[in-house]
Amino acid sequence: MSLKYPLQEVRICFVGESFVNGTGDPECLGWTGRVCVNANKKGHDITYYNLGVRRETSNELRNRWLREVSYRLPKEYDGRVVFSFGANDTTIENGKTRVDFEESIVNIQQILGEAKQLYPVLMLSTAPCGDQAQNQRIADLSQRFAVVCQELNIPYLDVFSKLINSNIWLEEAKNYDGAHPRSAGYAEFAEIVDNWDAWLNWFSLT
Amino acid sequence: MSLKYPLQEVRICFVGESFVNGTGDPECLGWTGRVCVNANKKGHDITYYNLGVRRETSNELRNRWLREVSYRLPKEYDGRVVFSFGANDTTIENGKTRVDFEESIVNIQQILGEAKQLYPVLMLSTAPCGDQAQNQRIADLSQRFAVVCQELNIPYLDVFSKLINSNIWLEEAKNYDGAHPRSAGYAEFAEIVDNWDAWLNWFSLT
Repeated sequence: MSLKYPLQEVRICFVGESFVNGTGDPECLGWTGRVCVNANKKGHDITYYNLGVRRETSNELRNRWLREVSYRLPKEYDGRVVFSFGANDTTIENGKTRVDFEESIVNIQQILGEAKQLYPVLMLSTAPCGDQAQNQRIADLSQRFAVVCQELNIPYLDVFSKLINSNIWLEEAKNYDGAHPRSAGYAEFAEIVDNWDAWLNWFSLT
Repeated sequence: MSLKYPLQEVRICFVGESFVNGTGDPECLGWTGRVCVNANKKGHDITYYNLGVRRETSNELRNRWLREVSYRLPKEYDGRVVFSFGANDTTIENGKTRVDFEESIVNIQQILGEAKQLYPVLMLSTAPCGDQAQNQRIADLSQRFAVVCQELNIPYLDVFSKLINSNIWLEEAKNYDGAHPRSAGYAEFAEIVDNWDAWLNWFSLT
């Protein structure tokens, strides 16, 4: 189709697991859709690609993200990538975590190291789930992810530490399926991102 | 994460081009998000996967859809697929359409023929764009798509014929980028789907 492109157009891929997909949100926006809606309200024009996949570990994401993202973000447009993953790595199956802790670290290094050579990149920790022991493992992972991002000079937002103290997120998850919140929880997540300087900097006009 | 699955859970992949992506909708829902929100309001629980990609032709979609869809719809869950594509095939580039008319027909036969063996499938025509000559080509394609779907026994919805007579859709497209509407146009598209018996039958409890 022939298009007259408006100004300030940007295409963003959000890549990660069920929390990126927005699983549980009856409004079908999750935090990713909400932050894009809020940016659009300020006059930006975002093409919104949600690439969250339920149950996906960082091992799996490592093999998928580049193909799906590069397909949607051709070089001639202003394409950017937001990652958030890790929770599924920490799930216990058959007596051990689905992904070994150190393997998760290697995965994030590999994924973000490659991504930053191709696109502007942001990384967010994953969110808490309903299981206390698993949340401790997510917290440990989140802290190491912060170090990796600092080394790679990629902006990192620890939403886990904020949401773990939120009654809304945890109550909604508990009352829904034990892991995912509903609309209010995702709105809370979105508000944290809406106030993140690294996200806001993507849309500054200077 | 350990999950307590609620009843009536269904995972739906929406596959196609920019109109499936919802390009131009500042509310980041498009018609696909809106029909899922409306189904959720009736008590259903949809995991919503939007796999619309801008500028994609049916040649490209043919090579992509199965990998991305099967990755999101593992056998153990109730997964379904909604397709809508064709507009980009009819765009003129270098003096001819991006995809030859008969090649588009072969593509839809191949894509839907394969998809129906794996998942419940619905097909919708694409929507009108702002170009009158291109809309005639889309109309021709839409009519042939109807025949293919009848042969394959796949429910088909001709939204093109309805939206081509809609001032909202065409006016919004004209005032935005010449091709894509804004929220009101997508809401109108969604309302047509909301009243489609084949879509409604997916959620009947009998």
